[in-house]
Amino acid sequence: MSDPKIKVGKNVSFGKNVVVEENVSIGDDVVIGHNVVIKKDTIIGNNVHISDLTLLGRSPGSNKKMARKPSSTLPPLVIEEDVRIGSNCVIYRGVSIRQGVFIGDLASVREEVSIGNGSVVGRNAIIENKTTIGGNVVIQTGSYITADMIIEDDVFIGPCISSSNDKYMGMGNFHHQGPTIKRGAKIGNNATLLPAIVIGEGAIVGAGAVVTKDVPAREVVVGNPSRRIK
Amino acid sequence: MSDPKIKVGKNVSFGKNVVVEENVSIGDDVVIGHNVVIKKDTIIGNNVHISDLTLLGRSPGSNKKMARKPSSTLPPLVIEEDVRIGSNCVIYRGVSIRQGVFIGDLASVREEVSIGNGSVVGRNAIIENKTTIGGNVVIQTGSYITADMIIEDDVFIGPCISSSNDKYMGMGNFHHQGPTIKRGAKIGNNATLLPAIVIGEGAIVGAGAVVTKDVPAREVVVGNPSRRIK
Amino acid sequence: MSDPKIKVGKNVSFGKNVVVEENVSIGDDVVIGHNVVIKKDTIIGNNVHISDLTLLGRSPGSNKKMARKPSSTLPPLVIEEDVRIGSNCVIYRGVSIRQGVFIGDLASVREEVSIGNGSVVGRNAIIENKTTIGGNVVIQTGSYITADMIIEDDVFIGPCISSSNDKYMGMGNFHHQGPTIKRGAKIGNNATLLPAIVIGEGAIVGAGAVVTKDVPAREVVVGNPSRRIK
Repeated sequence: MSDPKIKVGKNVSFGKNVVVEENVSIGDDVVIGHNVVIKKDTIIGNNVHISDLTLLGRSPGSNKKMARKPSSTLPPLVIEEDVRIGSNCVIYRGVSIRQGVFIGDLASVREEVSIGNGSVVGRNAIIENKTTIGGNVVIQTGSYITADMIIEDDVFIGPCISSSNDKYMGMGNFHHQGPTIKRGAKIGNNATLLPAIVIGEGAIVGAGAVVTKDVPAREVVVGNPSRRIK
Repeated sequence: MSDPKIKVGKNVSFGKNVVVEENVSIGDDVVIGHNVVIKKDTIIGNNVHISDLTLLGRSPGSNKKMARKPSSTLPPLVIEEDVRIGSNCVIYRGVSIRQGVFIGDLASVREEVSIGNGSVVGRNAIIENKTTIGGNVVIQTGSYITADMIIEDDVFIGPCISSSNDKYMGMGNFHHQGPTIKRGAKIGNNATLLPAIVIGEGAIVGAGAVVTKDVPAREVVVGNPSRRIK
Repeated sequence: MSDPKIKVGKNVSFGKNVVVEENVSIGDDVVIGHNVVIKKDTIIGNNVHISDLTLLGRSPGSNKKMARKPSSTLPPLVIEEDVRIGSNCVIYRGVSIRQGVFIGDLASVREEVSIGNGSVVGRNAIIENKTTIGGNVVIQTGSYITADMIIEDDVFIGPCISSSNDKYMGMGNFHHQGPTIKRGAKIGNNATLLPAIVIGEGAIVGAGAVVTKDVPAREVVVGNPSRRIK
């Protein structure tokens, strides 16, 4: 930690076997667990806690088969003040984590994602790239948030929901687009969201629903395929 | 490992880069993999194997948005004899893991959970806090066990099931209550269980079923919403 | 890394806190992240990248309750050239990963599995033992591939699908058999596949479908239980 290219604030506690790469900046009153890896250029604000065995600032990789090539020049991972990050997480470069966010153990967040103030990303939740998550959002344990999604403020997503962004499943020319979830909408556990659908403001999707088309604001849908109730 | 505040039995094998915090107690014939982290006060019985890159005894964290505050004084993590714990797991303080339990890789168990004798928690299964799991239970890979659940002895839970405990999804005054699964019931893969339902003794829930109300003992239900068959 | 029993090629880069056990062989131009653990006998080809906190070559464990005993003598893990493996992964002995495969973060692959040329295993995907995955296959994030499955070439599996291989859920004498997915078939996100079913060549399973019986070649099925459309 005595590397001159690393900037460390006051009252920072490091666990054992921590690896901090070049050009990392760490604020005051930060707690870093054991066996944590912080990749180059990562910026960590004041009063952030990082639990054990977590990786921060990973750069994306790819192979020939993958639909998208990673951006060659991503900004650093930025973690604002008062954030809590769990154990065994994988957070990429190019992610912006705003004040007071909580990220559970075994969660993963890909590049070009922003997570708004005070939001919660549950344990083992997986967030793909190029998705925007508003403030005061709850994404519960094990939910899968695909790429190119828009999740507005105050949305509640139960555990284990699934979403997708590719209508033709790897075969077509469909412009990839994940679902949009408008302000205050609620999604029940294990719901399935199809590509490019819009869940309206304050709408409610029941547990286990398979949502194949847009849901108007304040409507409640359940079933497979999902239909309006009441 | 020569810390006087750590108690180590006979014939214990430590991998490399292992971190053992203060006041940990380790029995005889224990095998600990590489890069394992054991937090303070953890108690490990005889003949326990801990695979690589696993975290034992984590204390809970929270942010402002989260429904529950963690208990301020949790008992230690207790792992009884003959237990096997996989790689890259996250197990909290205040968990009691009884004799002969098997926990797969990438699994996570929150605080105030007990797991009965000889039960299996599959890889990447996630168990929330304040849930009781009986003896001889199988929870297969990737299943999500919410908080405040009761799982009795001899229950079989297939892969990737989802459960929830909050009927109003973050908005109401509902007392959080997860499902209860009675003795010997069987839950098929990717089933969805709603809050507070009771699955009766020996009942069977089919794969992909969405269970919205109680299932009587020995009944078989399938579909969305689930209905009795035969 | 100066252990005489470890073979290291030219231009290999090791992160910090890397553990390499005996008899490991590493090709040329390999990049290994921080806190990686490589268990004994693992064979890594040229131009392979292993990201941080990953475990390679794990041996299986078990307890009394588990259906199958692990093979006592498994061949080593073999990783062919140009493979990319993410962070916090767990890959077992007895796995064969062919040229150009990409495995995402937090994924896990059990023993006696082969993954064909150029295939993609998404983040947090979990592959059970004795399953065969062809070439040019995509398995997206969070999907669960049970044991004893056959996935032919050019198959596309969306995110969060679930499969099972035990018709009687731990109680019967059913010979365990996972689904077979024939060449070029496509499975939508969060679909549920029952044991031993066959998805025919070029068939399409819609998102959220619960597939309880065989799907003929080129047919499209949706719903719970799934039925043919058009």
